[in-house]
Amino acid sequence: MNVVMKFGGSSVATIEKIQNVADIIIRKKKEASNIVVVVSAMGKTTNELISLSKQISKRPDTRELDQLMSTGEMVSASLLSMALIEKGHDAISMTGNKAGFRTKGIHTKSKIEDVKTKNLDQALSEGKVVVVAGFQGINERGDITTFGRGGSDTSAVALAAKLGFDCEIYTDVEGIYSVDPRRYKEAKKLDVLSFDEVMEMAHLGAKVIEPRSVELAKKYNVKVYIALNTADKKGTLITDGGNVLEKNVINNISVIEDVLLVSFNAHKKKLSDIFLKLAQRNINVDVISQSEETISFTSTNENEDIIAELFEEENISYNFRRDLSKVSVIGNAMRSQPGVAASVFKIFSENEIEFYQVSTSEISISYIIDKDKVDDVIRILAQEFNL
Amino acid sequence: MNVVMKFGGSSVATIEKIQNVADIIIRKKKEASNIVVVVSAMGKTTNELISLSKQISKRPDTRELDQLMSTGEMVSASLLSMALIEKGHDAISMTGNKAGFRTKGIHTKSKIEDVKTKNLDQALSEGKVVVVAGFQGINERGDITTFGRGGSDTSAVALAAKLGFDCEIYTDVEGIYSVDPRRYKEAKKLDVLSFDEVMEMAHLGAKVIEPRSVELAKKYNVKVYIALNTADKKGTLITDGGNVLEKNVINNISVIEDVLLVSFNAHKKKLSDIFLKLAQRNINVDVISQSEETISFTSTNENEDIIAELFEEENISYNFRRDLSKVSVIGNAMRSQPGVAASVFKIFSENEIEFYQVSTSEISISYIIDKDKVDDVIRILAQEFNL
Repeated sequence: MNVVMKFGGSSVATIEKIQNVADIIIRKKKEASNIVVVVSAMGKTTNELISLSKQISKRPDTRELDQLMSTGEMVSASLLSMALIEKGHDAISMTGNKAGFRTKGIHTKSKIEDVKTKNLDQALSEGKVVVVAGFQGINERGDITTFGRGGSDTSAVALAAKLGFDCEIYTDVEGIYSVDPRRYKEAKKLDVLSFDEVMEMAHLGAKVIEPRSVELAKKYNVKVYIALNTADKKGTLITDGGNVLEKNVINNISVIEDVLLVSFNAHKKKLSDIFLKLAQRNINVDVISQSEETISFTSTNENEDIIAELFEEENISYNFRRDLSKVSVIGNAMRSQPGVAASVFKIFSENEIEFYQVSTSEISISYIIDKDKVDDVIRILAQEFNL
Repeated sequence: MNVVMKFGGSSVATIEKIQNVADIIIRKKKEASNIVVVVSAMGKTTNELISLSKQISKRPDTRELDQLMSTGEMVSASLLSMALIEKGHDAISMTGNKAGFRTKGIHTKSKIEDVKTKNLDQALSEGKVVVVAGFQGINERGDITTFGRGGSDTSAVALAAKLGFDCEIYTDVEGIYSVDPRRYKEAKKLDVLSFDEVMEMAHLGAKVIEPRSVELAKKYNVKVYIALNTADKKGTLITDGGNVLEKNVINNISVIEDVLLVSFNAHKKKLSDIFLKLAQRNINVDVISQSEETISFTSTNENEDIIAELFEEENISYNFRRDLSKVSVIGNAMRSQPGVAASVFKIFSENEIEFYQVSTSEISISYIIDKDKVDDVIRILAQEFNL
């Protein structure tokens, strides 16, 4: 077995935690022929570096910001490699550049174009554990770039894809649950999920793994295993699906909070103009629905003032419904079982739960409801679908 | 005029100080066509990084330590470049690698083999101020290396040599003094010194600039100007000497403290054996002198226990004289004026100052005296030689 193991910032936040991670890697070495480790920056290092730069400029030069931020992962990679060496195991750390990450696109949000694995292959052939600084590479000008939010997950999946290794992402939760355990205590840890389900969950509010890295995993069919960073409990495997996934109708309930429902009346010819102006003001517009002359869309509470200002400028009457949540039920099997949407509707109706909007995708149904109804809805749905 | 400006850790210890440095560079831009800036890590960053590594290992892997330490200068270089850009000036930061520093030798103490200035030349031709992370380069394996103590001074001098620029080193003192002003208030700031004098001073206890960078400056005849990091006072110029230097017989008095004088009796055939064993125990041995059967050498107080242990193992009688200091008078003109040593001896004799050892080089004379006599000796010598 060959594996890329990824450890996030909270897993390497202190020297003691770095030592624990080293022990987990050493245990893994007994079963794995080749191990590449990807690490994030220690604890809150990245935020601290960004905060330093913000003292200099409200909008720091992004090329410089990339070079600044990249140091966080270099520090944790060096320290973890030192810890492995100190414990008697041959190891070597590599910057994103040295590990061969070539990127394109803009600074702070670069995309991985390729991974030139020559240095990695060499070190692995010498029996070394390679510890790679995540979240970073270099672009065609040789400048250091970073990958944005969840960048180290993306580094790990890209390496696994390129090397043909499995991918294990260690984090501070035990895996992926049917419902966020902080919301619903009886939530079940899921053994296996499909790429599509996890992407849908991430988009619909579940804080599990960046959709971007799952997308990459799907593209190259890299199995991704998500587990607690103590590596002593069974986690969740994300794969391309298959029969095992069809058994459950619904695998997960995810929630997005602080939803604002905006309703307004406008002539159709003015509609595109309004949505263009919302976009220019960086207002995220989620689900749009229409009945006769009334248009509704959802956004987030924090955008209330800007949206109000726009409608007043345009002299359009509008209405806000605040403190809403978006509850989504997600399951790969919805594709093949068309009755699911109907049965969810039935549950809402039987339990007299009012909803203001509903939207569906191929594998999910989302409801906009009052915030204070969310816990009830989760309980009812979880019991109904055995989550 | 083209210039390499170097700012040390205390000059970039805070965001406010980095802003001040940016302002100094911007003022310099009015007179300089091309500016390259070399920075050290912010304040005590390097020590903090080393301390992290020491929590993992007493002797951390040096390759990993180099990658770890190199991040300190990357951070300050990025932040300074951001500050310049924020103030409306085109700037770009570069790691040692990007700036072209190619090294050889062992990690943490690498030597600069060459500076490939292609990226630097390109950025300068675009009118940019280039901010280079000091103290670092890459070796023939593409691994990050560092240059050891005073490494950023060496980076600055090497760049100045390669680019044919002047070199200005900004620090927290106003320049080089005839005597350390904390020891002798009336000490004079020296306008000009020769490379040899500064090297001798650095070896003999003056904390001004690493001898290694002066050696490099001498080799490539790079004028080095040392000044306060507010850049508003005249500093000291270090050059290849010339007539101006001949005027003063003695330019400087330097002091090394905590000197231990060790005397012992041993047959000559055993001597080399003893000095070999001292070396194996990492004991620094400074001046060795001999009269009949008694051998004396100087070391530092902190080595007392190890030296005592060795002599007891070897069954050799020994004697320690503790709390001594080494006072050195240094001047380039000693080369051409042979009477200087005699006149210094005369001063010691007239003032009845007891000394335990004396040693000379081409441009210096050093005396081992009691610690509590140092201030008197400095005062007398400074007055005599008008320092």
